[in-house]
Amino acid sequence: MSRSPLSPLAVSLGDPAGIGPEVIAKCWDNRDRFELPPFVAIGDPRSVRAVWDGEIATIDDPREADSAFDVGLPLIQIPSPEEDRPGHPSVAGAHCSLDALEIAVGLARSGSASAVVTGPVSKEQLYSIGFRHPGQTEFVAERCGIASANVVMMLAGATLRTVPVTTHIPLRDVPDELTAALIESRGRTTLRGLQRNFGIAEPRLAITGLNPHAGEGGLLGQAEIEVIAPAIAALRAEGWRVTGPHPADTLFHETARARFDAALCMYHDQALIPVKALHFTDAVNITLGLPIVRTAPDHGTAFDIAGQDKADPRPMAAALRLAAECAANRSAAA
Amino acid sequence: MSRSPLSPLAVSLGDPAGIGPEVIAKCWDNRDRFELPPFVAIGDPRSVRAVWDGEIATIDDPREADSAFDVGLPLIQIPSPEEDRPGHPSVAGAHCSLDALEIAVGLARSGSASAVVTGPVSKEQLYSIGFRHPGQTEFVAERCGIASANVVMMLAGATLRTVPVTTHIPLRDVPDELTAALIESRGRTTLRGLQRNFGIAEPRLAITGLNPHAGEGGLLGQAEIEVIAPAIAALRAEGWRVTGPHPADTLFHETARARFDAALCMYHDQALIPVKALHFTDAVNITLGLPIVRTAPDHGTAFDIAGQDKADPRPMAAALRLAAECAANRSAAA
Repeated sequence: MSRSPLSPLAVSLGDPAGIGPEVIAKCWDNRDRFELPPFVAIGDPRSVRAVWDGEIATIDDPREADSAFDVGLPLIQIPSPEEDRPGHPSVAGAHCSLDALEIAVGLARSGSASAVVTGPVSKEQLYSIGFRHPGQTEFVAERCGIASANVVMMLAGATLRTVPVTTHIPLRDVPDELTAALIESRGRTTLRGLQRNFGIAEPRLAITGLNPHAGEGGLLGQAEIEVIAPAIAALRAEGWRVTGPHPADTLFHETARARFDAALCMYHDQALIPVKALHFTDAVNITLGLPIVRTAPDHGTAFDIAGQDKADPRPMAAALRLAAECAANRSAAA
Repeated sequence: MSRSPLSPLAVSLGDPAGIGPEVIAKCWDNRDRFELPPFVAIGDPRSVRAVWDGEIATIDDPREADSAFDVGLPLIQIPSPEEDRPGHPSVAGAHCSLDALEIAVGLARSGSASAVVTGPVSKEQLYSIGFRHPGQTEFVAERCGIASANVVMMLAGATLRTVPVTTHIPLRDVPDELTAALIESRGRTTLRGLQRNFGIAEPRLAITGLNPHAGEGGLLGQAEIEVIAPAIAALRAEGWRVTGPHPADTLFHETARARFDAALCMYHDQALIPVKALHFTDAVNITLGLPIVRTAPDHGTAFDIAGQDKADPRPMAAALRLAAECAANRSAAA
């Protein structure tokens, strides 16, 4: 079976006043050291020019990215009506960031790009122009024809991948939001995502408890008995390799991490604390359950340091590498 | 000012059928490699003999420990009416573990020992003989004349120390248990403990939020605004160096950890996940707020592996080292 080389990655610059343009330019500068595959940036070239004096290779078609990549930072232009200054977001910049995102997703949907990597946007700015999604993830899901309830956010570091069952809700609401059906659904999406994106034929999923010591047999809460264990049983009955409910505090040391391919956690901090403690500079946000590969660095626009040459490009580099790996795994399985 | 050398550490063996005797004996075996100070074990010598064939130096007075330490494992005998087999806990063993704990605390109270290190006990076994405390910590507090509500559990690893405000309660109950007064009280005990035990004159305390992103300005919960921020303001007004509420997921990477001496967390897993992810084999449980130094390895009796030469002595070694460091810091300040 012959396989054509993969298309380039499509990278949206994110908010032009944020650190997205800077970290993407720095990634191109360090493409050999970071071992990066060819990618094409999408956004306003002026936002890159404002923070970087390297070569920009403006192109119209992603197919030109491969050859342009040796010459300069390949970029598909989204002209903005105004020029944004780093650290000073604007309505025009928000429109530009949304246009770039939409084009990047379209390129991946059509196969012209092998994956989408999204630079950081400002939700506040997007809300001001009528954006109604909680974040880029839900927007991408909608553009792919997937209900946002059916995609999951995974945070993937070099030695640990976690997925939160519930995400951006008050901690007080977590116990009532958790249902066996929700845990099963997130678990299934995660397991299929491990197969499809990470090339793991028989993925192992560890599921945490909600309470200290996973409830200690009911002494410290009932969620493990009433909600989580039934979800685990249901997933096992489908043939998946699932363990738990595990006490969350002893699940993330080196020996324990070697026993699973991903951990499904009950809430935001339970999932994100261990990954960010261990892998702050290389943890990547990847959306599972989409027809395309989509990754993102796990940081925001950082308007406070934009334009000061302070932004660390390693998270973006990790997002680019993981997107390419997942695209290659999908291509190999196709 | 001349200072007399410190008294030895008093180490209770814990449940004779658990891994306590084995890890303490292994610590003596590796006393040079682990850089351990002189200590005296307290418990039934038969429980050590059952799992270890090294030299036991039975003594009656802790003052003999220093010279005995070169000869064998110094041990003050608590004869048990029955001999316990490893992995098979008994009522007699529970009595023995409690007697050992009580004697160890008494030696530290009297100054004959410089600190107490407690081996793992079985709560189930202790409950069966009428023990009514949630754990050893509360028993030690009572024997020291301190209300157990006024001591805190700190988990201390090489690069991170955390303290949970609430401990062994269902996650559902956490939001209602949190009050500004409780956070202030835990914060004060932690700060004084950092001064007294760790020799940090002006300790820096980072306090987490309860909700994702520390509530994101009220969008994801009110606890940060209504409860945590007022507690931080009150502690600052007393002159303490306190920051927060910090989003918990970004508080524990290397750069962030360098900015504080301890993190005060709102609940069990928020405090224990990062320390155990980073420092599983060297994290030590230390009780702050006591008139004596008390540490413990952060593991249980592990009856399932007792007597099989599988137990890792490194957590006990870390508990011994930290106890000695804290005792030295207290002695230097006295």
